[in-house]
Amino acid sequence: MTLLVAITGWDVDPWVERFRRLLPDRKVVTLGEPFDRRAVDYAVSWKHPVGALDGLPNLEAVFSLGAGVDHIFADPRLPDVPIARVVDSDLTDRMSEYVVMHCLMLLRQQRRYARQQTAAVWQDDKNQSAAADVRVGIMGMGVLGQDAAAKLKMMGFDVAGWSRTRRSVPGVPCFAGSDELAAFLARTDILVVLLPLTAETRGFIAKPIFDGLAKGGVLGGPSLINAGRGGLQVEDDIVAALDSGVLAHAVLDVFNVEPLPPASPLWTHPGITITPHNAAMSDPDAVGRLVVRQIRRLEAGEPLDYVVERSRGY
Amino acid sequence: MTLLVAITGWDVDPWVERFRRLLPDRKVVTLGEPFDRRAVDYAVSWKHPVGALDGLPNLEAVFSLGAGVDHIFADPRLPDVPIARVVDSDLTDRMSEYVVMHCLMLLRQQRRYARQQTAAVWQDDKNQSAAADVRVGIMGMGVLGQDAAAKLKMMGFDVAGWSRTRRSVPGVPCFAGSDELAAFLARTDILVVLLPLTAETRGFIAKPIFDGLAKGGVLGGPSLINAGRGGLQVEDDIVAALDSGVLAHAVLDVFNVEPLPPASPLWTHPGITITPHNAAMSDPDAVGRLVVRQIRRLEAGEPLDYVVERSRGY
Repeated sequence: MTLLVAITGWDVDPWVERFRRLLPDRKVVTLGEPFDRRAVDYAVSWKHPVGALDGLPNLEAVFSLGAGVDHIFADPRLPDVPIARVVDSDLTDRMSEYVVMHCLMLLRQQRRYARQQTAAVWQDDKNQSAAADVRVGIMGMGVLGQDAAAKLKMMGFDVAGWSRTRRSVPGVPCFAGSDELAAFLARTDILVVLLPLTAETRGFIAKPIFDGLAKGGVLGGPSLINAGRGGLQVEDDIVAALDSGVLAHAVLDVFNVEPLPPASPLWTHPGITITPHNAAMSDPDAVGRLVVRQIRRLEAGEPLDYVVERSRGY
Repeated sequence: MTLLVAITGWDVDPWVERFRRLLPDRKVVTLGEPFDRRAVDYAVSWKHPVGALDGLPNLEAVFSLGAGVDHIFADPRLPDVPIARVVDSDLTDRMSEYVVMHCLMLLRQQRRYARQQTAAVWQDDKNQSAAADVRVGIMGMGVLGQDAAAKLKMMGFDVAGWSRTRRSVPGVPCFAGSDELAAFLARTDILVVLLPLTAETRGFIAKPIFDGLAKGGVLGGPSLINAGRGGLQVEDDIVAALDSGVLAHAVLDVFNVEPLPPASPLWTHPGITITPHNAAMSDPDAVGRLVVRQIRRLEAGEPLDYVVERSRGY
């Protein structure tokens, strides 16, 4: 009975420490040490190396430690066992903090006032818009998208959602599929991207999307907030859209290559706000408890929650 | 039947234009033109000059065009007629946008990530705090304070209020008076000031308040957000508290002297965020309609709403 902690890019110690405490009856091992591969029955993964979960003959399930599972499906040698996502209310709350903060910073022109402060300029804007006049469009209306929608509505924004298949969310107009994409984009001043990364969505946030966004909105041009996955976006298209005025601003938490290389021109572009993929960090305490609850369910003969549908990739 | 528009510091034209449109049966005059002083029955004021409302023998009421009335009581020659505040849902919403945005920027360390971006540094914080771990204390629990409290709670913050007299707000612990001030401050990581400016509150936001704020909070030190009135704060004490580490950050929308003079050291202090008194701007359309509704009430023999209690100053 061994839990394999298969993590790259994050500090592994806090995770091992939590799982040892939460699972005192179980051995907890990491990729960097020798261990009995036949004893591993569960694995937790964040960007595990290709093949790291192969050759574990008694593996019963893999748990993603972050909101997405694209990092798991990136492994062509992934064993054929159930993969479960993490759905954590703390992670959901953190994502909504990020989305609401950046929508408010765009609405209230916070970057303009920060620039004015550096120049000791006192100047207000007689025509500041109210949140009700700003149309936020959320792509991806799962748990994260629905929570962000509810909180943005409460702050007064005019919110709609778009997803691959139809969702029904009280008080939020929901568009669905490629047929309704143009109508959704045409009413969107701030595009919030919370899509999963799949074969279908890779590179989807690109020129045709930007060209379809609302013109004539009160903020002087549409903006993009991508807090989903870097692989969703075509970064050259974002820069081109900013430079041509199609986009007014882009807030990016995720990138094609992470960490974003120091030489990337995105760092210094005046129309781009960068955060280091921390919109919604997994909290080891909360996520550790969720994984342990799932293991207990399996051991009690109950079905796993939040199992990923492998054919669609999320 | 004349309405006197007595405004300084703001552009008067949008206001005159609205009132002419909303009150077609009434003459609308400004301070800069000759008019029959005996014909004036109502006045609207934003920082009217001392004595401008004196010698109007038929004046029936004065309406403030902003949330506060301290600018009206600053006139020692103010006539003895009812003074009414503006309570406008748009103005309330705008104030909550400002307060929620700045609380989220403090929570999510937005200034740190902005600095990192200018240096092309990719570094996240494994120990980012959740809103639930941050205690926001709102001073002034009137209409503005209660709306901000509800929205901050919805974003997950741990919110309490303090006011001169006891308020009862569902779900928000409310402290009252000088007896409970120390307990309120001791549980406050982010102090949000929305107090009215009166003889009692002038200079209240000063060293003793800062010294009483929570120590050991998850944000590394308490912060101040003053979106009330500049006269509430002692600016030298704010700078001293920032320099000594008693305060971690101050977000100031209001100042002792406005516009803030270009030579003020506040502009360049690294611990201060400055906005040009625009947290909640009065919208001429919304406020104009409210004033006209009040005039219609008076003419129909009904009592005025939101009349200020002159003895307490708000």
